[in-house]
Formats: sequence, C-alpha cells, structure tokens
Amino acid sequence: MGPGLLGTSLGMAIHARDSAMRISVWARREESRNACLQASWCHEASDNLEEALSGSDLAVLCTPVVHLSEILGKIGSILPANCLLTDVGSTKAEICMTAEQAAIKNFVGSHPIAGSEKSGMDYADSALFEGRPCFVTPSENTSVENADKITAFWKWLGMRIIQVAPKEHDRILAQVSHLPHLLASALCNFLSKQSRACREGAGQGLRDATRIAAGSPKIWSDIAQHNSKEILEALDLFSEEISQLKHIIANQDFADLEKWLEEGKAFRDSIA
Amino acid sequence: MGPGLLGTSLGMAIHARDSAMRISVWARREESRNACLQASWCHEASDNLEEALSGSDLAVLCTPVVHLSEILGKIGSILPANCLLTDVGSTKAEICMTAEQAAIKNFVGSHPIAGSEKSGMDYADSALFEGRPCFVTPSENTSVENADKITAFWKWLGMRIIQVAPKEHDRILAQVSHLPHLLASALCNFLSKQSRACREGAGQGLRDATRIAAGSPKIWSDIAQHNSKEILEALDLFSEEISQLKHIIANQDFADLEKWLEEGKAFRDSIA
Repeated sequence: MGPGLLGTSLGMAIHARDSAMRISVWARREESRNACLQASWCHEASDNLEEALSGSDLAVLCTPVVHLSEILGKIGSILPANCLLTDVGSTKAEICMTAEQAAIKNFVGSHPIAGSEKSGMDYADSALFEGRPCFVTPSENTSVENADKITAFWKWLGMRIIQVAPKEHDRILAQVSHLPHLLASALCNFLSKQSRACREGAGQGLRDATRIAAGSPKIWSDIAQHNSKEILEALDLFSEEISQLKHIIANQDFADLEKWLEEGKAFRDSIA
Repeated sequence: MGPGLLGTSLGMAIHARDSAMRISVWARREESRNACLQASWCHEASDNLEEALSGSDLAVLCTPVVHLSEILGKIGSILPANCLLTDVGSTKAEICMTAEQAAIKNFVGSHPIAGSEKSGMDYADSALFEGRPCFVTPSENTSVENADKITAFWKWLGMRIIQVAPKEHDRILAQVSHLPHLLASALCNFLSKQSRACREGAGQGLRDATRIAAGSPKIWSDIAQHNSKEILEALDLFSEEISQLKHIIANQDFADLEKWLEEGKAFRDSIA
C-alpha cells in the first residue's frame, strides 16, 4: 500500500526473489496505479483498500507517516483474518499505539532503514533493502509468532533485524537519524547566511556531511512532528556535547581535543 | 616538500600534465624519500632543504600545519631569489603572517580543498585537484604578479580559484570545513554514549554525515589549534541556529519547520 520509493522497491524486491508471489497495490492516484500495472512486479492495483487486501497473507503500509493513523483507523474491519499487517513508518510509538487502539491484533510495526534523499517510484531499486538494518517493534500485546513472521519477511529481503519496543525505537531513531538530519539542515541554514565563498569553497566533506539535508522538507517535518519529544531530548544531549567541545577549545586544551576526536573516530570506524 | 597525501598527489598531478618538469622532494624520513624515488613523478629527494630547493622556480610546502612555522623561519635565507613559495595549509592568517615576519617576499598562501579522510602517500591520486576549489590568499604586501602566478599554477591543475585575504579564508574555512568536521565528531561522540542499537541501526545517511569524523585526530586537533578563535565563533553562531530549531519544535510549529528545512535544502542543492 503506497507505491512510493519504499513501496515500489519492496514490490520489485519481492518479485525478484519469488516471481510467483502475487503482489497487489493500493494507491489513491490513478497515475500511480497505472505506472505499477505497467511494471512486471505488480499484478493488481486498486484504490479500494478492501479490494487490494482481499486474499492477502501480508499487507505492508508504505504510505507517508501522516496518513497512517487514518488508514489504521479503518483497516481493522476489512483486514482478512489471517493477513499480517506491518508498516515502514519512520516513527513507531504513535503508530503502534494507534494500531492497538484500533484493535488490529495482527499488526507488527517495522522500520526498514533503507531509502534515499530522493523520493518517488522513479528512484525505486529492488536491492534497496539488502544488507540494511530493519527495526521490528512488537508491542506488549504482539504475539511472538507474528513478530517472528515479520522478522522472517525482512530477513528474506536481506535485512539485518533489530527488535526493540516501539518507544525505544523512537528514541534510537531520534539519535541516529532525526538528529543527524536536523544537524545537516542546521548547518546548511547557517552556511546559507554566510559569505558566498561558503558555497564556492564547499569541499567533498561538506557535501557528504549535508547530503541528507536535501531530503523532502515535508517528509522530515512530518517525522519531526511524530517524534518531537525524543528529538528535543536528543538535541539537548547533543548541545551538551557541543558545550563540552567549546569548553575544550576555549581552554586551548588540544591534547583533550585530540582524545575527543579519537573517540568520535572510533565510533565512525565502528559503523564503516 | 612533505610527500604526504597532498604532496604526493601534487607530484603525480604535475607529472601527468608535464612529464618534462623536474620535481624535487624534500622529506625528513628516509622511507618517504625512497618511496618517492621509486615513483616515476619524482626526480630527486633530499632531507636537506637547501639541496631540495636548489634551482627551483616554485616550492610547495605540503608538511603538516604544525611544522610550517619552523620551516618558514629558516627557508627565507635559502630560497632561490626567483623561487616562488606557497603552502597547502588548512589555516592561513598565522602562516601568512609568519612568512611576512620572516620577510619571505615571494610567499603566497594557498589552500587547495582536496583531500580525503585518509592520509599518507598510499592514498595519493593524480586527479585529486581536478574541479576542486582552491583558496589563494595574498596579503597586503603580496605582489599582484606573484598572486597571479600561484593562481595560474592551481588553475593549471584544474582547480577553481577563490582569492581572499588570509583572515577571511580562516573565517570561511571555520564555517565551511572545521565546523562540519567538529559537528560530525560531536555526533559520533554523542552516539558512542548511547545504546548499542545506535551502531546497528546506522543507515547510509549517518555514514555519509559522519564520514569526515574518521579523519586524523592529530591533524584536526592541529587545525583547531591554529583557527580556534574563528571556530569558537562559528560554533556560537551554529548554536544559535540549533536554539532556533529547538524553539520551532518545542512550539510545535511544523509549518515553520518545513520552511526551515526548505532553506537548508536550497543551500544543499546549490552545492550539489
């Protein structure tokens, strides 16, 4: 459901692994449905949720986070009894709670860390998920069986699974994804106010460091809205790190600065 | 002088454009001199400054910034009368002032924005300079003729020239290079103190955003030491940007956040 960058890549990735698997698309826009129907991975496309879900064993919600609440509100009554439901939303606490309140017992939240600063089906890639991490976020009421099935699905697509509670996911993502994104945007905002030579003198380091700031402002504003509490906390903790750095430099304590840079390098090398 | 990543790449780049040009290396370590002598671009190598400079039309100091003062202190008396001298140091105000105090009238500061988080001659690349920006920083006493010659030299290697005064260079570099580097390190330091899932959940966005934090702690500590005043000012201005961001999120003003993200994206797109 929702053939954007992730949804379309998902269809392509499933089809690449098992071309016999029947893939049904739900999309609001006729243009999107037609584009999907012209691709080999898509077998059916509908703008009717019930029709799209009919006969499905697994449904994956790939719509923007802002539309998830609305869809979760009405999907409970039309989801086939044996159909497992998951999503790919960037925040999980609110989504998982909404699914629980809507009494969708076969829902397990997911968040595949795969994507691009580009959006839309034109940038879809069947290899998007391979080797990438994927959060699976069962809540207290999720059955182990359902959590295992969703885990197996993403593993089948080549992903590395991290299983944590929905709230823990949001805290981690605020730190590891939302904070870096906002810092890159803050850096770009700051530089845009400085001399023109800041553009002309930009090196590859700055380009890499700020690549994520080219992401969709709408999508990232929505993400921030859905995880504002955790993001503010991450920003506060990060500001403490900056204060410590200023203190080190103001004290001209460059042996300490080197040690601090060593610690940063050790973390960066560990995720290389 | 100083066959590290930049010095060696420079030798290779010059040789690739004009193999008849005589390239003489100055290096303290015998191992470095031997490695250079085995390469096709290097014609002579010496640990004696006077010997290395003898007969040269142009000398380029590619030693780490910390050694520049010492070398500039003694090079004045042995520099051939018609030999132009430049350097590739990451900070310019102090270096240019030292050259002036040492009365080296044929010195013009340079800073080619080319490099890598890797260091050492093993990573040298003859194409390192192509299409990259290069600051040329004449001081008040630099002759237009000398500034033009140094400009022509870097242009010949394919670089885009930005000519500014040494102090202006340092302010720009603090904003466009040193600040991004320290922010990437601060982010890595911050994340290293959080849950293990921050490592496991790291996506490509975080990897790109923090690539520069893998740079040499010694080199970057030295750079910070030579530009601490401008760096502290950039950190203060950046902190204001972060405060503004916190304010927007705390006020749940997500239309404003989207606008702020748009402004960041516009800058990033402009340096793509």
